[in-house]
Amino acid sequence: MTQRHEQVDIELGDRSYPILIGPGLLSDPSLLRSHVTARDVLVVTNETIASLYLPKLTTALDGKRVVSLALPDGEEFKTLDSYARILDALMDARMNRDAAVVALGGGVVGDMAGFAAASYQRGIDYVQVPTTLLAQVDSSVGGKTAVNHPKGKNMIGAFYQPRCVIADTSTLATLPDREYRAGIAEVVKYGLIYDPAFFDWLEANVEALLSRADAALIHAIRRSCEIKAEVVGVDEREQGLRAILNLGHTFGHAIETAMGYGNWLHGEAVAAGMVMAADMSSALGWLAAADRDRTVKLLTRFGLPTQSPRIGAAEGRQLMGMDKKVLDRKLRLVLLRRLGQADIVSDYPNEVLEATLKQHFG
Amino acid sequence: MTQRHEQVDIELGDRSYPILIGPGLLSDPSLLRSHVTARDVLVVTNETIASLYLPKLTTALDGKRVVSLALPDGEEFKTLDSYARILDALMDARMNRDAAVVALGGGVVGDMAGFAAASYQRGIDYVQVPTTLLAQVDSSVGGKTAVNHPKGKNMIGAFYQPRCVIADTSTLATLPDREYRAGIAEVVKYGLIYDPAFFDWLEANVEALLSRADAALIHAIRRSCEIKAEVVGVDEREQGLRAILNLGHTFGHAIETAMGYGNWLHGEAVAAGMVMAADMSSALGWLAAADRDRTVKLLTRFGLPTQSPRIGAAEGRQLMGMDKKVLDRKLRLVLLRRLGQADIVSDYPNEVLEATLKQHFG
Repeated sequence: MTQRHEQVDIELGDRSYPILIGPGLLSDPSLLRSHVTARDVLVVTNETIASLYLPKLTTALDGKRVVSLALPDGEEFKTLDSYARILDALMDARMNRDAAVVALGGGVVGDMAGFAAASYQRGIDYVQVPTTLLAQVDSSVGGKTAVNHPKGKNMIGAFYQPRCVIADTSTLATLPDREYRAGIAEVVKYGLIYDPAFFDWLEANVEALLSRADAALIHAIRRSCEIKAEVVGVDEREQGLRAILNLGHTFGHAIETAMGYGNWLHGEAVAAGMVMAADMSSALGWLAAADRDRTVKLLTRFGLPTQSPRIGAAEGRQLMGMDKKVLDRKLRLVLLRRLGQADIVSDYPNEVLEATLKQHFG
Repeated sequence: MTQRHEQVDIELGDRSYPILIGPGLLSDPSLLRSHVTARDVLVVTNETIASLYLPKLTTALDGKRVVSLALPDGEEFKTLDSYARILDALMDARMNRDAAVVALGGGVVGDMAGFAAASYQRGIDYVQVPTTLLAQVDSSVGGKTAVNHPKGKNMIGAFYQPRCVIADTSTLATLPDREYRAGIAEVVKYGLIYDPAFFDWLEANVEALLSRADAALIHAIRRSCEIKAEVVGVDEREQGLRAILNLGHTFGHAIETAMGYGNWLHGEAVAAGMVMAADMSSALGWLAAADRDRTVKLLTRFGLPTQSPRIGAAEGRQLMGMDKKVLDRKLRLVLLRRLGQADIVSDYPNEVLEATLKQHFG
């Protein structure tokens, strides 16, 4: 039985791959057969997702040799040790260069499994089955894989493209509400930085998205992946334009760090950070005040925070300055020229940044 | 003071890089300044090489911020743990994306440091300063980096090109005789698989090479790098032609493993393995008996072993079958169609292989 689904083709020459988006995909044997060509497969997942979806995926992969590895769930396990466990599992199962790693889970699982696939025998096939909204709209495009170093996030990794991404919208039904909404923050981001019409569509579809209706989800995920692909496509290795994907992330990084990782979800910090970027963009006379207000209202309707905790302007500034995206100590910020158009800016008046920090961080 | 040196340009589009070959290069500040553009440098080396060449290199890098890490010497330390130590050193020194990793040492140092450079922040500059003949003629071209897994060599790594290779022939003066001769085995290999004129030149320059004369070394290294580049250039990710670089390696792998790693040097096992490949090629009626004899004679003049230890044909066959280069259980061998022309063969009569194994492995 083949489900209704949509497809986004990521064009990268001989590393091109499709993103398949729709309900029930991970339990569809014929779809998996046509997109996972390896006969030997290691499924990497986490303990939470394993109990929900691993049996379904394994059944749908019937006919292949499938080995699975469930790692503990959480960003704190995105380490070189977990990466080594994936490599051990590949070795123990005597997987060769024709094997594939399938990542079943959120961004943490995908990042680790992707780096393991990139480096096992210098690269074997990698298939993503993202089960969180954040992973479906973010990790599906861009080829970033990594693990954390104790002294910095995502410091160890590779650029490595999957053979295929299977974004099964049915898996979002079991996503905790807070995590789901955090994923929406990134969807809103795509409208803000690149596509005012998509922003309009989001405003008109808040209820459908909050009820996780398939049609709305498929459109939101597809458009998010398309936008990310357009932005990344011209800039695969993150020199220029790609940085606009970090809207709200530099401010948000300070919030995440100050509050301790995990207390604010990434998407929540990004939401509050995007409001800071919108405020600063308005103060510079770029973003219309009405569009700044629409941004706050939309995030609020999605149940996302629009006000940073009072971490203190000095503390916040310092945490932003330690962000690894800083080039030569000069703080480049992603700001909005207008709704739907972001820019990377470093020639802003410092007092405007200071006022924004003061207003939000206190 | 700029030394006389030669240069081989490896053409790989935007990943092209030069190999500089000559005496005294690593202590030449102006040469280093023009080829190592990063301001922040981590030099990765081993304890043996550190005492011989690290001060010279550090002095020549004057003006840059140079941090160094000396790892224990030996293949048994080519592990994920050592790799993690390199990443720790990069983090501890707060190296950013503009930094470079310089590998000062043999293949082990280069493989580990290269993989660390490939994966630190998803890739920073990598400069090789190979100090063994083997590393100068083998690791300089091909972009292979890796560490070992407890269950298999080079199982974890990346294809990653250096910015520049600085092959300082003066460093070969301190190389132990046995290790130097093992490096020559790979030089002979390039003649055998690809270039009969180079084989002739080697026959005529045995004494000059054994005395490690600069002019002979420069020619031998340059021609070896050129040949490897031609072979690899049309086949960067090891599907077809590149496999001819493994002449003698499948037989040699069995010898190395049976004797315990380190008891036979890699180049020694390759030398004995090349004789086996030459014998089998002669038995098939491809390689002329006279050219088989010239091969044995040349290796002998270089003080290299031409007879495998008696590890037993059954044992040898099994060890060859476990080689990760085997595709679908079918044993592909690199054999010689004639002197200077290798081919990848899997349709040989099995009894010819068996006779070769019996004759050499006993």
